[in-house]
Amino acid sequence: MMLYRRAAIIGIGQIGASFALAGRRAGVLGHVTGVARSQQTLDTALEVGAADECTDDATAAVREADLVYLAAPVGAMRQVMSDIVPHLATDCLVTDAGSTKARICAWAAEVLGDAVVFIGGHPMAGSEKRGPGSASAELFADTTYLLCPGSAPQPAVDKFQELIAAIGARPLLIDPQRHDQIVALSSHLPHLCSVALSLALSRGKTDELATFGAGGLRDTTRIAAADVELWRNIFDANADNLLPAAEKLREALDELIGAIAAEDWDQVAELLSAARNFRDGLYSDGGDQ
Amino acid sequence: MMLYRRAAIIGIGQIGASFALAGRRAGVLGHVTGVARSQQTLDTALEVGAADECTDDATAAVREADLVYLAAPVGAMRQVMSDIVPHLATDCLVTDAGSTKARICAWAAEVLGDAVVFIGGHPMAGSEKRGPGSASAELFADTTYLLCPGSAPQPAVDKFQELIAAIGARPLLIDPQRHDQIVALSSHLPHLCSVALSLALSRGKTDELATFGAGGLRDTTRIAAADVELWRNIFDANADNLLPAAEKLREALDELIGAIAAEDWDQVAELLSAARNFRDGLYSDGGDQ
Repeated sequence: MMLYRRAAIIGIGQIGASFALAGRRAGVLGHVTGVARSQQTLDTALEVGAADECTDDATAAVREADLVYLAAPVGAMRQVMSDIVPHLATDCLVTDAGSTKARICAWAAEVLGDAVVFIGGHPMAGSEKRGPGSASAELFADTTYLLCPGSAPQPAVDKFQELIAAIGARPLLIDPQRHDQIVALSSHLPHLCSVALSLALSRGKTDELATFGAGGLRDTTRIAAADVELWRNIFDANADNLLPAAEKLREALDELIGAIAAEDWDQVAELLSAARNFRDGLYSDGGDQ
Repeated sequence: MMLYRRAAIIGIGQIGASFALAGRRAGVLGHVTGVARSQQTLDTALEVGAADECTDDATAAVREADLVYLAAPVGAMRQVMSDIVPHLATDCLVTDAGSTKARICAWAAEVLGDAVVFIGGHPMAGSEKRGPGSASAELFADTTYLLCPGSAPQPAVDKFQELIAAIGARPLLIDPQRHDQIVALSSHLPHLCSVALSLALSRGKTDELATFGAGGLRDTTRIAAADVELWRNIFDANADNLLPAAEKLREALDELIGAIAAEDWDQVAELLSAARNFRDGLYSDGGDQ
């Protein structure tokens, strides 16, 4: 059943294009207009079938839309909201796919106000690849899709949750501040860690690393290949939660280094055990190792 | 073509059992005797077809063997060599699968001496899973298998390289010291990093991490679930190379934390870019992201 007649996807990269592909395949999205600044992105979005039409003009795209999906970089989000707000239809739902929520939900309250309904969103999906060329209708399958409905009316929340379920994800409602505290650990700290490791390795002056590395090297550095602008904005928006988490990482690293330097192998084994117990318990359904 | 008539796999866990499975499937290994201390490990090795017979007596297993594959923990390796050396046939090749090479090759020279031919080995394969139940004849497919032949005679080296190729891996000869320097970066530092991250997350006091994490959390913490004893021994054996590498990681982390705390987003972007460029170049064949 079609839930939204006309959607505008502002920032039709991997996430935005995947959302459109999944929504169209499920039959819950009607006409889709893709918006991006780069012509190449727009061409690719059309090629992969993520949009019916494409434009670089967000204000034109949102007219008559009953769903506006903001997948622009977090740093650009406030400006995009300001640009489109005079052109939004009153029955329009605005949502976003930003990786932090407190700042974006505050901007929405401030800029969009009561003109339209806003529901903050954060799909726990995506890869280190970029652009609509890496989009997939399967991207959200079996993932959690976090929602910050704020003061949105219940029928609007129910309807959007229906769409999220239709694209294969599990909607989960959460307070924006609590969201940012948790993702500082679950997502932003792993990212910081992968970047720090990649930086350290890049300074190790050997071009033979890949030959001498196995899955561990590949997996621990993978997300460091992600979009620079995206992550600069995330670190900016969530610095208050990320910095204390980063301190915990520094402390853990210091403990490990200290125990190895002191040749205290009992202590090293204890730290290794604690890490292993944590990881074994992380995916307690055993579904993923 | 059968290369080794009778093999003894001492420590028939994931690696040892995979080696046996792959060698038997390729027809290059004849009779296989599996050795382990735990009866459960021995039973599983028989169940998965990795061995013709199993025993907890390494000295009995190596008699008449023309290939002895040491896959015991690095910390136990010297004792195992001492135990078996009086019982080895003179035409026997001894090899190992330890993750560090300088210490093991020195032990082999000291303990095995000229009694038999020794070639140090390090398959760049394996997962965080443990035991013969997680073994696979495919484990070595398309991986690098590092070899430290030392003073082994060329025909013995050629023959063992033939076996490595037969199980689907690429043999690569390297000096033991150089090996340990490189794997400190390519393998041991990523492991230390994953353990530090898991420790930090375990102290974050939230049981919702998996729900709020995506592939990044899963991949960066995966190897922290690996065997504690194995990794304590690796950190011990390669501390001299690992500690300077760990200092580089600490410095990189400090730089990132410092730039975020100072809200120096240009510097943050520069560090993110350097990490991304490194990761993009790491697998330059583009075969794996």
